[in-house]
Amino acid sequence: MSTLTESVYHSLVAGVPTEGTAGTTQATDPAKNQQTGPKFTLLGKGQAEVAAQSAAEAFLEYRKLDPQKRAAFLAAAADKIQAAGEEIIATAMTETGLPQMRLQGELARTVNQLRLFAKVVLQGDHHGVRIEPALSDRKPLPRPDLRQRTLPLGPVVVFGASNFPLAFSVAGGDTASALAAGCPVVFKAHNAHPGTSQIVGQAITEAVIELGLPGGVFSLVYGRGTDVGQKLVADPRIKAVGFTGSRGGGLALMQTAATRPEPIPVYAEMSSVNPIFLLPSAVAGDNPVLAEGFVTSLTGSAGQLCTAPGLLFVPEGTSGDSFVNAVRTHLSAAAGVTMLTPGICSSRVKGEQKLADIPGVTEVGRGSEGKTEHAPAPSVYSTDVKVFVTTPELSEEIFGSVCLVVRYSSVEELEEVATAIEGQLTATLHLDPRDSKDTQTASTLLELLELKAGRLLINGWPTGVDVGDAVVHGGPFPATSDGRSTSVGTLSIGRFLRPVVYQNAPEALQPAAVQDANPWSLTRRVDGQYAVAQKGE
Amino acid sequence: MSTLTESVYHSLVAGVPTEGTAGTTQATDPAKNQQTGPKFTLLGKGQAEVAAQSAAEAFLEYRKLDPQKRAAFLAAAADKIQAAGEEIIATAMTETGLPQMRLQGELARTVNQLRLFAKVVLQGDHHGVRIEPALSDRKPLPRPDLRQRTLPLGPVVVFGASNFPLAFSVAGGDTASALAAGCPVVFKAHNAHPGTSQIVGQAITEAVIELGLPGGVFSLVYGRGTDVGQKLVADPRIKAVGFTGSRGGGLALMQTAATRPEPIPVYAEMSSVNPIFLLPSAVAGDNPVLAEGFVTSLTGSAGQLCTAPGLLFVPEGTSGDSFVNAVRTHLSAAAGVTMLTPGICSSRVKGEQKLADIPGVTEVGRGSEGKTEHAPAPSVYSTDVKVFVTTPELSEEIFGSVCLVVRYSSVEELEEVATAIEGQLTATLHLDPRDSKDTQTASTLLELLELKAGRLLINGWPTGVDVGDAVVHGGPFPATSDGRSTSVGTLSIGRFLRPVVYQNAPEALQPAAVQDANPWSLTRRVDGQYAVAQKGE
Repeated sequence: MSTLTESVYHSLVAGVPTEGTAGTTQATDPAKNQQTGPKFTLLGKGQAEVAAQSAAEAFLEYRKLDPQKRAAFLAAAADKIQAAGEEIIATAMTETGLPQMRLQGELARTVNQLRLFAKVVLQGDHHGVRIEPALSDRKPLPRPDLRQRTLPLGPVVVFGASNFPLAFSVAGGDTASALAAGCPVVFKAHNAHPGTSQIVGQAITEAVIELGLPGGVFSLVYGRGTDVGQKLVADPRIKAVGFTGSRGGGLALMQTAATRPEPIPVYAEMSSVNPIFLLPSAVAGDNPVLAEGFVTSLTGSAGQLCTAPGLLFVPEGTSGDSFVNAVRTHLSAAAGVTMLTPGICSSRVKGEQKLADIPGVTEVGRGSEGKTEHAPAPSVYSTDVKVFVTTPELSEEIFGSVCLVVRYSSVEELEEVATAIEGQLTATLHLDPRDSKDTQTASTLLELLELKAGRLLINGWPTGVDVGDAVVHGGPFPATSDGRSTSVGTLSIGRFLRPVVYQNAPEALQPAAVQDANPWSLTRRVDGQYAVAQKGE
Repeated sequence: MSTLTESVYHSLVAGVPTEGTAGTTQATDPAKNQQTGPKFTLLGKGQAEVAAQSAAEAFLEYRKLDPQKRAAFLAAAADKIQAAGEEIIATAMTETGLPQMRLQGELARTVNQLRLFAKVVLQGDHHGVRIEPALSDRKPLPRPDLRQRTLPLGPVVVFGASNFPLAFSVAGGDTASALAAGCPVVFKAHNAHPGTSQIVGQAITEAVIELGLPGGVFSLVYGRGTDVGQKLVADPRIKAVGFTGSRGGGLALMQTAATRPEPIPVYAEMSSVNPIFLLPSAVAGDNPVLAEGFVTSLTGSAGQLCTAPGLLFVPEGTSGDSFVNAVRTHLSAAAGVTMLTPGICSSRVKGEQKLADIPGVTEVGRGSEGKTEHAPAPSVYSTDVKVFVTTPELSEEIFGSVCLVVRYSSVEELEEVATAIEGQLTATLHLDPRDSKDTQTASTLLELLELKAGRLLINGWPTGVDVGDAVVHGGPFPATSDGRSTSVGTLSIGRFLRPVVYQNAPEALQPAAVQDANPWSLTRRVDGQYAVAQKGE
């Protein structure tokens, strides 16, 4: 595993370092506001096509790998990334300003995610097998033998997110689930962390080589969005898109994908303000603890999390006042930390200024600026529901640790808000579960909020996403482009699959997943009922 | 249940007959080429909005129905449609020219489909429940309690198909699966069979009333595509679209849906030529039987089936010649039957003329014209692979009983074709399974064709779709707008669902589907493993 000792690095197109013709980029250390690390050449127009072509060729072989080999590949990639962990973290710290402990956690998540998908591949539920054996005596017509399974869509282009240089980047969730599904990945690196991307990309490339897979299974490309990213989305060989980023960026990709001669699905995670509703009895209790939990959630990772709390509904009256005062106190002790890039910091500062200038919005409190560059003070503003519902700008995401407290005077106002808000990744209710009135209010609100969000939390904070079998990290537009799926957890493999059925295929022509002998020991539906396989049967 | 004795009928907006302001339409008896039956008023601009608003209001209650009640509603609709069967069939015969026996079969399918979805609702696998109980001792972080289930997307607009006035119309597959999922339906009737639509719409409305459901659960609207259809797809209260029809029509809806402020999924089934590959040993056998099967599949329902065979690959040489001669013989005994509408007949005649005029295409044979109006003779043309692969127009669907035989000289040519063709609903291979060379060829082709089609048939004919648990009626673009789903069978309920997860919700706030007590006796995934419920547990 290499450290980045060269002065210049290139895209890894089907495993081959490929010098780009469109100039170079270099990372910026946001804490020092200076360029850092080697240069990375950017692919020019037409150069990314090689990655798409290699992926299309590799798909024909890669999609047919048996589960053991595909799982071994994912596990090997995990091992190699873990082995390079120290230099990945050191490089990512410099390129993103994120602290070591956060990046250690993110690395562990990334590696565990790959291993989780290796398990998913071995378990095989994603094959979605449904079998209806022939019923030759059925009246009025005989039933043919029907055997359904899923197939991967084809090569996928994945765009790296700025805010998770590991878990939503080169070897992140979209890459892991696409590779698990059997789809080669062309990964468009985020230009904010090119060195981190290079080391992780090399690790995956080594796993490709170790398993003897075709190089086109994975490519890492550097380039400008318009030259390379949009071109890949428009490429006829690409069959799906994964993206985590801004609403504008996601919408642009959606438009490109929808206007291709052959439209393709786009899974874009875009924007969410993650509303939190504090019900009256919740703030009647231990205010300082609640306030501390909120400030911790708001300020973690400088608020640069898709699930950071951007809207907090607090009752009017003395309990609510007391809570807001406690927030002010905790906030005053919080210092800003370095944001990911100068551009993100600048947007956040402008966003806060725009918010502060809106009539009816007042500052609740703020922390202190950090000692490094690009470390604005976390801040909280306040308004009331009447202003909120008549001012659409107040629902816009500010990416960073800025939250708007909205004071409400009645449950009806909360219902109005819950009915009016846009789609969200999360929505949260805080209540005292022993209080029957709060529980009734929560029940009413939950029925409205579950129509607007992918994850509903009770008495928690939305930051932090558990990667497993039951999580949903998604939600109705504009939280994502496609609320029918999740970008985190095992269910996400379904994004990259489609069903096919074989009618009256003799066993010699049946794929392994649907054969009566069930060589992969899959849980399958037979005549509409699950038949759970014991592994090893 | 009324017979259509009035002189004029109206849209049924949330169950209320609503006179349209945009003039009237009337059915045409295609066999006689004359207008028939009562008039139907067409909704004007803005009038369809009432249906969307009613659906949005009804959604809040309808989505929460317990499984028994929702299943009872679907069963009641089935019963009422069956009770009106005689007049439905009589009306449909006049409006579509389809023969009685075909419509009887279609009615049975429609009723059975509703009952199948009633069973799906009761079984409840579509809730997709995944539970990960809290692990408070997990390191480094405790796991929260996570409980995932699906929710319906919201009101759905469904467009009726011309060619299935029952099974893909008012109470067809999209309506049944959307209602089963918990989505109210606004149904845009096809103007070719307004009377049939009215009777079926009245039946569903009666079921809505009998079950005491909000009227907005179902609306039947008459109107022009631009005034009413496109407006409904653009309406912010509509959350998904089902469509079966032409490629042009589907593309227009896809564009409208993609450019809304909130884009929504469109499930459009559009065009397919359903290629059939006769491998050498298949035609070496009993040619006349094979040829008869082909001609029957080609001419059934005047070729007006989405899965009708439009392309047939036949080997060059004497066996192939013999097969083609047998086709000619069988075809000469086949008479044309009335097509659905004068417009469809006209398109088919023009399509055939365009095909006949292409250099390198010759006529193989034809049947006779039917004795009614709009009953063109079924016909078969021929070309070779070299012409086929260089003439894109030869891959276009001609809706009606016209098929192009493509003679091939080598397996490599078939591989070239299978690699080049667009997405299809079906692809079919005929082979002698005792012949190892054919089996090898079939295996190679199947691997290419499964990337292009939703249903792969061996030694059968693609017309005829079995409605059950394992079928896939879908396929990559342009067969459909979204190859990730099916429009027929139980899997289609997934089109109208999205996942949500509840994190740390106390039992009082958990929906029934995810409670530990499992009151609906659902099969659920717990910690990533299926736990199959015994009904009645």
